[in-house]
Amino acid sequence: MNVTVWNENRHEQKNAVVSTIYPEGIHGALASFLKQDHSYVQTATLDDAENGLTDEVLKRTDVLVWWGHLAHDEVADEVVEKVKQRVYEGMGLIVLHSAHFSKIFKALMGTSCDLKWRIADEKERLWVIDPSHPIAEGIGEYIELEREEMYGEHFDIPTPDELVFVSWFEGGEVFRSGATFKRGKGKIFYFRPGHETYPTYHNKMIQKVIRNAVNWAGTPNVNTPVYGKGNNNRKN
Amino acid sequence: MNVTVWNENRHEQKNAVVSTIYPEGIHGALASFLKQDHSYVQTATLDDAENGLTDEVLKRTDVLVWWGHLAHDEVADEVVEKVKQRVYEGMGLIVLHSAHFSKIFKALMGTSCDLKWRIADEKERLWVIDPSHPIAEGIGEYIELEREEMYGEHFDIPTPDELVFVSWFEGGEVFRSGATFKRGKGKIFYFRPGHETYPTYHNKMIQKVIRNAVNWAGTPNVNTPVYGKGNNNRKN
Amino acid sequence: MNVTVWNENRHEQKNAVVSTIYPEGIHGALASFLKQDHSYVQTATLDDAENGLTDEVLKRTDVLVWWGHLAHDEVADEVVEKVKQRVYEGMGLIVLHSAHFSKIFKALMGTSCDLKWRIADEKERLWVIDPSHPIAEGIGEYIELEREEMYGEHFDIPTPDELVFVSWFEGGEVFRSGATFKRGKGKIFYFRPGHETYPTYHNKMIQKVIRNAVNWAGTPNVNTPVYGKGNNNRKN
Amino acid sequence: MNVTVWNENRHEQKNAVVSTIYPEGIHGALASFLKQDHSYVQTATLDDAENGLTDEVLKRTDVLVWWGHLAHDEVADEVVEKVKQRVYEGMGLIVLHSAHFSKIFKALMGTSCDLKWRIADEKERLWVIDPSHPIAEGIGEYIELEREEMYGEHFDIPTPDELVFVSWFEGGEVFRSGATFKRGKGKIFYFRPGHETYPTYHNKMIQKVIRNAVNWAGTPNVNTPVYGKGNNNRKN
Repeated sequence: MNVTVWNENRHEQKNAVVSTIYPEGIHGALASFLKQDHSYVQTATLDDAENGLTDEVLKRTDVLVWWGHLAHDEVADEVVEKVKQRVYEGMGLIVLHSAHFSKIFKALMGTSCDLKWRIADEKERLWVIDPSHPIAEGIGEYIELEREEMYGEHFDIPTPDELVFVSWFEGGEVFRSGATFKRGKGKIFYFRPGHETYPTYHNKMIQKVIRNAVNWAGTPNVNTPVYGKGNNNRKN
Repeated sequence: MNVTVWNENRHEQKNAVVSTIYPEGIHGALASFLKQDHSYVQTATLDDAENGLTDEVLKRTDVLVWWGHLAHDEVADEVVEKVKQRVYEGMGLIVLHSAHFSKIFKALMGTSCDLKWRIADEKERLWVIDPSHPIAEGIGEYIELEREEMYGEHFDIPTPDELVFVSWFEGGEVFRSGATFKRGKGKIFYFRPGHETYPTYHNKMIQKVIRNAVNWAGTPNVNTPVYGKGNNNRKN
Repeated sequence: MNVTVWNENRHEQKNAVVSTIYPEGIHGALASFLKQDHSYVQTATLDDAENGLTDEVLKRTDVLVWWGHLAHDEVADEVVEKVKQRVYEGMGLIVLHSAHFSKIFKALMGTSCDLKWRIADEKERLWVIDPSHPIAEGIGEYIELEREEMYGEHFDIPTPDELVFVSWFEGGEVFRSGATFKRGKGKIFYFRPGHETYPTYHNKMIQKVIRNAVNWAGTPNVNTPVYGKGNNNRKN
Repeated sequence: MNVTVWNENRHEQKNAVVSTIYPEGIHGALASFLKQDHSYVQTATLDDAENGLTDEVLKRTDVLVWWGHLAHDEVADEVVEKVKQRVYEGMGLIVLHSAHFSKIFKALMGTSCDLKWRIADEKERLWVIDPSHPIAEGIGEYIELEREEMYGEHFDIPTPDELVFVSWFEGGEVFRSGATFKRGKGKIFYFRPGHETYPTYHNKMIQKVIRNAVNWAGTPNVNTPVYGKGNNNRKN
C-alpha cells in the first residue's frame, strides 16, 4: 500500500513549541510510525510545488493522510478537486484534527464542518463506541490523553456511516471524534486528536488508531460501476 | 410555510412536447398543486435576475423545490453558495429528477451523483421501502408510472439517512428513487421521477409525495447550535 | 393521541427517598406533565391485572412510555409479546432509563442492551447531537442535571437510526443517551435519564424531551404493507 | 477460520427436484465451495443431536451459515439462545433466503421479517448498491439468475447498517436482497437468493458473494467491552 502524509507544515516553522515536539514536522511523525506497516510512505506539504500533490503522486497514493490548520485557503482549488476525484476513484482519506475545516473535507461532507473549541490543557478520553470496528482493534475501552484541545458538539457533519469514537472532555463537552464516511468508492475517516502543541501523535494508542484507519481505508476494491447512457435496446 | 419552486425552464421554450404537457412550465405545474397546501408558493427560473433567487426570496423561503437538466452550469456559483447557506440554516430542499446533477445537489452530497439512464418509454414502479415515513403517507405499496425515463444503479450518493422509495424499471434496473439527507439544520429529499417529456407531475400520487416532502422538509426548528471558541474559563 | 405510562412501581413501595420525590409514583409524575399535551393519558403498573396492559388498553394506546428496573422478569412474556406486536402495528414506544434491560426493549433491539453504570451523585450533561430533530426542539445546546446515575459506553444496542443526545458524566464517561429506532411501523425512542433517587422527571427540560418524543412517536401513519404470497399470475 | 454450515435438510428428503439439484444437500453444496477458502468447514442439520449445534461446535465456529424454510419452529429455543449469545461474542452469521423467518434472524432483528413472495420462474437481477463493500468484491454491476422465487418489499427489517444488493424481479418487484447488521460484536449478512428448486447455489457469482460474506463476517476482533457496575470511587 502507498501512503502519502500531507501536512500544512506552518506551525512547525513559526512555533518552537511545535517544532520541539515534532522536530521532523507533524508529517514526519505520522510517516514515521506508518512506516512500520507500509514500505511506501511519503510526505507532502503545502509549500511544495502543486502543494506536493502532483498527478503522479496522487495516482500512486492508496491512502492520503491530511493535517492542516492555519492555511486551508492556500491549498489550490485544483489540487482539492484532484484529491476529491481520487477519493471518488477509491483512494482512502484520513482527516486529522483541525483539518475538519480543510477544503477537501468540507467538499466531501457537503456541510460547514463547524464545531466548538477551547484550548485549556484538558484531559480527553476517546471512548470506543463500535468495538467490532477494525479501526478500534486493539484499543480497549478508551484512550486517555492528559492534555488536549477541546472540540465540542454540535459538530456539523452529515450523519456518519459509522461512529467509532466519542470523546469526553474534562471541561464538560462531548464530541464525535472518530467517524467514517464513504464518498464514491473512497473511504474516509475523520479522527479528532492532534492539536499541534501537544505530543498526541507520539501516543502509541493514537498511532494504533491511525494505523488501523490507514489499513481500513486502503482496502482495494475491484468493482467499477457503469454510469451514463445505457443501451437503448436492452430490455430484459 | 413559504415555498419556492425553481425551474430551469429551458425545455419548455424549445420542445413543443414539453410545453404541451406543461403549458405553465414544470414550475407552474409544481406550484399549482403545492398551492393546495400552502398560501405562499412562488416560482423562480434560471433566466430571472439572479436566477430568481435573490437574498430576499431565499430569506423568506422555507422549502425550495428544484428542477434542472440542460443548464446546470449556467446557475451562478454565488446563487448556489447562498442556497447552500440557507439549507445549513434550516431551509428544506426538494431535488427532482435530473437535478441530481445540479450544482447545489452535488455540493450538498459531496459525491459525483452520477447514475445510469435510458429513455425508452419504460414502466416504472416506485416501491415504498419505509412505510412509516411521513413522505410515504397515503401512497400504499407503490406508485406505477406507465412511461418514464430509466435511472439505474449505481447512483453515486452518500448512504442516505433514510431510504423511502426504490424504483423498478421494465428494462431490468433498480434505483434508490426517494432518499433523505440532513445537511446543517436543513432537510433534503431527492425524488427521481419527472422526465420532461412525460406527464409525471400530473400524477396524483407523485404530487402526493412531493406535497408530503415539502411538509416534512419545512418543519420549523428552533435550536441554534453554538460554534467557535468556547469560554476558556468554563470548567464544569 | 392516547398515551399510556407504564411503571414497575416497586421502588416507590420500598424506598422512602423515591416516594418522597415521586409521591404519585414515577408513572404519576410522567403522566402529570404529559397531560399538558394530551387529553387521554392513563397509567398502568406491574401489579395491575395483566400488568395493566390488557388487549383493550394496548389497542387504544398510540404511545406507550415504559419505566422499569427491579422486576423486568416479572413482566409476563405474553404481555411483552402483545406490546411488541402493537409496536409493529405502529404504536410508539418511549423507553426510559433502566428499562434498557426490559424484556420489551431487548426483544425489539435484538442485542444484550448492556452498559456500564455507577451511582455517585455525578453531574450529567446531555448534549444535542442532532439539532434539527423534533425530539430536541426547544432544548438548546444541552441539558444539565446536577446529580444522576452514570451510564457509560459501550452501550450494546444496534446502530441507532438517529442519535439525538450524547451524555457527558463528571466521572469521565460518555453515553448515547437519546436514540431512535424503527421496528415494523412503530417508532421507538430510548432516553437515558431518570434514576429513581433523583428528581430528574421534575426537570422541565427533561419533561420537554419526553413530551417531544411522545409527539414524534405518535404520528399516525396510514400505509399498510402487504405481506405473504403474491398473485401468481401477476406479471407486469 | 472455522465455518459451520447449518441446513434444515428437509426438502432434500422429500422432494426429488431438490435432491437432484443438491445431491449432497444444500449444506453440502455450500460447504463444498467454502472449502476453497477455509480448511475447517463442517455441516450441521436440524435432525442432528442438539440440532447439530452443540456447545463445542458453536464455540469453535467463527462464521455460521444458515438455511431453513419448512421447520423453523423445530429448532430448539435453547439452541437459538446459544447461537444468539455466540453472535454477541463475535461469531459471524450468514442468513440465506427463507431463513429470513428463522427464529435466530427474527430474534436478532427485533422485527417480523415478513415479506411478499411468489414462485413463478422469474428472472432476478441483484444490483450492487455499495460497490466499495467487500461483500460485493468481484461481482461487477449485477448478478443475473434466470429463474428464482420472487421476494418483494416491504421487507420488515430494521434499517440495515449497509445495503449491498437490491434485487429486480421480472414480475415487477424490488427487494433489499443483501444487507448487513451488527449485533453485539457479531456481524450478520442477510442474502436473499436460494430457493430450493433452483440451482442458485451452483452459480459462481452467488458463491462469490457468500465466500466474500464469510470472510467479511469472520474478521477477528480483540476489543472486549466492560459492562456492569463501574468503580464507585473513580473520578477522573
